[in-house]
Amino acid sequence: MVSKLNTRYIQSLHLKKFRDIEGCFIAEGSKVVLELLQSTKLVCRHLYGLETWLNEKESFLRTFYSGPLEIVLPHELEKLSALKTPNELLAVFSKAVVQPVQPSGKITLVLDEIQDPGNMGTIIRNADWFGIEHIVCSRHCADIYNPKVVQSTMGSIGRVNVFYTDLDVWIQLNNSIKKYAAALNGTELNKVKNIKEGLLMIGNESKGINRKLLEMADEKITIPRKGHAESLNAAVATGIILSHLIK
Amino acid sequence: MVSKLNTRYIQSLHLKKFRDIEGCFIAEGSKVVLELLQSTKLVCRHLYGLETWLNEKESFLRTFYSGPLEIVLPHELEKLSALKTPNELLAVFSKAVVQPVQPSGKITLVLDEIQDPGNMGTIIRNADWFGIEHIVCSRHCADIYNPKVVQSTMGSIGRVNVFYTDLDVWIQLNNSIKKYAAALNGTELNKVKNIKEGLLMIGNESKGINRKLLEMADEKITIPRKGHAESLNAAVATGIILSHLIK
Repeated sequence: MVSKLNTRYIQSLHLKKFRDIEGCFIAEGSKVVLELLQSTKLVCRHLYGLETWLNEKESFLRTFYSGPLEIVLPHELEKLSALKTPNELLAVFSKAVVQPVQPSGKITLVLDEIQDPGNMGTIIRNADWFGIEHIVCSRHCADIYNPKVVQSTMGSIGRVNVFYTDLDVWIQLNNSIKKYAAALNGTELNKVKNIKEGLLMIGNESKGINRKLLEMADEKITIPRKGHAESLNAAVATGIILSHLIK
Repeated sequence: MVSKLNTRYIQSLHLKKFRDIEGCFIAEGSKVVLELLQSTKLVCRHLYGLETWLNEKESFLRTFYSGPLEIVLPHELEKLSALKTPNELLAVFSKAVVQPVQPSGKITLVLDEIQDPGNMGTIIRNADWFGIEHIVCSRHCADIYNPKVVQSTMGSIGRVNVFYTDLDVWIQLNNSIKKYAAALNGTELNKVKNIKEGLLMIGNESKGINRKLLEMADEKITIPRKGHAESLNAAVATGIILSHLIK
């Protein structure tokens, strides 16, 4: 049984405004929630589950989670959920403490106005797969704690550090690091060498990287097109470039 | 002004059952609709647009479309649309005639139970970017004419031929073509040579490729993991492997 007050509190976390005020966000589904419970960066505040699920998994859950378990009925979970088809589990976590980004000696992703939550989440998942520790985002990027972003990270949000800032200022402060930009009409990907250090800039889904940032790039990278599509999806392009740069 | 009958007809096309009966589907937004109007494979049956949009673009539109233009009011478009935020344009197209797939001398994508419409659309867009002509899908894959799939193809649905069939039978019939499978614990992608001909099998988002198909593969391919994510998104993995195989 979830109180009206708690229901309203959790529903408020569907919106960025209240996530910012509360410093909390929701995660849904056993796959994502179980991954986040094991993250060293996040603290779980509430855990709601269907009775059948909790009965079956409680002993497993107790190997890494000692907080309270709250039972919800399916129609209650539906009210709390931001998903079309709610899953068996929903949790409230405190947002991670943002770590200062120190880009020397590693590859850092720099995102300029990635607006689709699915793309944002998938890019975080890419970063986690390729061992990228930090993502630096412009202030117009989708909020990483948007429920759809959290969902599409598949748990990677608990491992990658994401930092929002004014990109042009931040890049100038880190001007000694080589800057690569995903762009049309750049060097063909196959001709770009593998790297150990660099900033990889990825731009908005329809407009690409804004001109001011693009001018700061030391090297523009293009994925060679063999067919007719006008562009690639931003998360796919990020994955392809990372796969090539990190070998 | 859209009649009640037409409204109901277009709303019915949100569902696969009626798309199959009518042989038609809807596309939305000026970017996607304009691309599809220029496809040689698709015929536009109805074109609804907001008056402001049609006034501004009619002469451009008339360079490649000679059918009737129907004006809709914003609240009417909202009723017709399958999107959360309807765009200025919505069109009904006849489905493309499916071409027989002849995989020799080229790379063909084989999809086993890709269920997420966004992934399905993004994979079609990848195929179009890398010059893949044909995609062969298991019968449990998402319907390519689902409005969300159409949307995320960004127009590529008008250029790539997609064929649904029983994969194990189809693969046996094309047994002379080398079969590659995206899988965990396969050959590292960097060690796989570029190819001119082959079937590239991609599996379901959570279960991967089913065992029977996986056993048919001549070579399993793995994208090396450097970090901690359990897996990559299916559309991202497809893009990375295609980018490597086609050089």
